[in-house]
Amino acid sequence: MHQIVVNFNGKIIDTDPMKTPLVPVFDRGFLYGDSLYEVIRTHEGKLFQAKEHLDRLMNSAKLCLMTYSQTKEAYEKELNRTLAHFQSKMGNPKADAYLRIIVTRGVGPIGFGLKAIETPTQVTIIAQPLTKFTDQELNKGIRLHVCTDRFRNHPRALDPAMKSGNYLNCLLAFLEAQDLGYDDALLGTQDGFITEGTTFNIFYVKKGIVVTSPLEIGILEGTTRRSVLELAQHLGYETREVYFKKEHLYRADEVFATGTVKMIFPVSAVDKHIINKGAPGAITMQLLGQLNEWALQHAS
Amino acid sequence: MHQIVVNFNGKIIDTDPMKTPLVPVFDRGFLYGDSLYEVIRTHEGKLFQAKEHLDRLMNSAKLCLMTYSQTKEAYEKELNRTLAHFQSKMGNPKADAYLRIIVTRGVGPIGFGLKAIETPTQVTIIAQPLTKFTDQELNKGIRLHVCTDRFRNHPRALDPAMKSGNYLNCLLAFLEAQDLGYDDALLGTQDGFITEGTTFNIFYVKKGIVVTSPLEIGILEGTTRRSVLELAQHLGYETREVYFKKEHLYRADEVFATGTVKMIFPVSAVDKHIINKGAPGAITMQLLGQLNEWALQHAS
Repeated sequence: MHQIVVNFNGKIIDTDPMKTPLVPVFDRGFLYGDSLYEVIRTHEGKLFQAKEHLDRLMNSAKLCLMTYSQTKEAYEKELNRTLAHFQSKMGNPKADAYLRIIVTRGVGPIGFGLKAIETPTQVTIIAQPLTKFTDQELNKGIRLHVCTDRFRNHPRALDPAMKSGNYLNCLLAFLEAQDLGYDDALLGTQDGFITEGTTFNIFYVKKGIVVTSPLEIGILEGTTRRSVLELAQHLGYETREVYFKKEHLYRADEVFATGTVKMIFPVSAVDKHIINKGAPGAITMQLLGQLNEWALQHAS
Repeated sequence: MHQIVVNFNGKIIDTDPMKTPLVPVFDRGFLYGDSLYEVIRTHEGKLFQAKEHLDRLMNSAKLCLMTYSQTKEAYEKELNRTLAHFQSKMGNPKADAYLRIIVTRGVGPIGFGLKAIETPTQVTIIAQPLTKFTDQELNKGIRLHVCTDRFRNHPRALDPAMKSGNYLNCLLAFLEAQDLGYDDALLGTQDGFITEGTTFNIFYVKKGIVVTSPLEIGILEGTTRRSVLELAQHLGYETREVYFKKEHLYRADEVFATGTVKMIFPVSAVDKHIINKGAPGAITMQLLGQLNEWALQHAS
């Protein structure tokens, strides 16, 4: 029994989405990864920060020289409609969902020109059960590998601030980390400054100061990253957005990852260096608690 | 009347491929651009350098940590079968075709892990009429813009030697060039050395010496690039594979692009600099003539 609902160009698909053909091979998302996307989650069954994610989708479009034929409001309506179908399928109107919206530049003959596009802006929304992490998983944390042979895409080659369907840079970093026995990977610049993880931003805590990489290094501006910086300041912690190398993570008091699904996730090791004796840090868990509370108040 | 034939996982599709849904949205080619491809053309209706292209596909797979479930021989057989369908549809057994083979890592749930893949290695082959260039178009040449704000992907971020479905770096360079009124774009390294065009390698001729960028700069090893270097040497020209900046193109006697479909194509301008008074160079045309002859002998 598959529990996934797909909305393809406004049509809800009820057959097995792993086997249902939907996309023509001439969709530029399939040909060139010429697509943008966002991941949105729910809290207590309601969309969380949908507006922030759709604002970022619009910003990605700007960076990708893409024009949408629909508005943010139309996308939010379709997200809610897909979520309602998913919750009805789950028999639970408060079932939490992972939602992914993918917008491609359209369908047209091979070639990069825009005039040839026959059907612009193909929109897919996927809704599926949200992965929730157990206390045991949180306590275990994740073990991260800092890639040494692969750099993050340079912002002036392919800007990481643009959330696009060109994901091989991070995907290959992930496979490298898995091959070495780690859970996931961090990527650096050519000069060895840490940028971000494959699907998450990275923070560390040293002497009560909360540190993360600055946007100008070439990373995605995570919505959770922003919330965590605000929450930390609100709680009275000093925060810094600065360039740092992997040795700072090795010697940190606490390290954690932030992302839409994971929210805040403790990092128990970076390369061979165990962080905080392998246990989640106190500030990490304080921030996670506050963020969860804040999210429950702000989901709508 | 559409003249395109699509072979999707061994099944020939005869309906309009712009409108025929074939790919599930959970295909990693669609989700992440997690796919590899090659373009092969025919001469007098026969595949040209199919083995070289399939060798390169296997090399791309290595760079992408991808394992195919089929062999090169199986791919060549399917290419020929698709070509035969195309030629039968055209009512001409010698009709020339553009063939594109796209291999994705497979279909599976969201996430980068390989174990989750439910259906590995999805293979699409597209056959469509080959664009042939008129003498007028050849004489006019193409006008190229050297991107100043965008670099080619760094080989240690996303190796240009891997021909993948992550095409936004080149696609955005192309859109920038078109926006400025040029036909196409050249990309450089961060240090300003010319690498390659969006879908082609670049050569220039100065005082009878034939020059192109070296492989180690981070470019695709074009099959036509290799043939041209061999032909030029065979004709007695000195060839050099060296780092050069755009000023070398501005001051060159001749500039030309090489690619599978274009073969050799004269470049009439680089940025605002007119090359050879805007006319195809003598060595460019000599190489094109020789390459055409050689191709007719070697298509099989």
